[in-house]
Amino acid sequence: MKAKVHIMLKAGVLDPQGRAVQHSLAALGFADVDEVRQGKYIELDLNEDDQAAARARVEAMCRQLLANTVIETYSIEIV
Amino acid sequence: MKAKVHIMLKAGVLDPQGRAVQHSLAALGFADVDEVRQGKYIELDLNEDDQAAARARVEAMCRQLLANTVIETYSIEIV
Repeated sequence: MKAKVHIMLKAGVLDPQGRAVQHSLAALGFADVDEVRQGKYIELDLNEDDQAAARARVEAMCRQLLANTVIETYSIEIV
Repeated sequence: MKAKVHIMLKAGVLDPQGRAVQHSLAALGFADVDEVRQGKYIELDLNEDDQAAARARVEAMCRQLLANTVIETYSIEIV
């Protein structure tokens, strides 16, 4: 199965990367952008046929490695 | 309107970041992961009410700043 994981900074946590992108866009003439938030997107190919088991496995990966749950949230989609 | 942009390395382009994640996962006991690809996910808040205009604007941003179209592909979702 394939898992798609989005990892974003929690709302309220300053996102310097997104801020930098917003400034660069403004410098290029895209001044109509109100906010930019940048996160990570990870696609995993899993050797696992059961959807629930795959989700539990990816949850564990997020908690242990992929996301810093103090400041980040993650969402998992199994396809 | 809000735009969600995914930027991934093109298929065939080596993804060292994804490879590093895969190795770290294997070291943590998640050896059943066949492949990992890591990309960027960007959320933009646009001051624009027309969906087609918003998409054209974000397309231009991707080509000019957000993506390196030599090695990366991007996909845009307007919500």
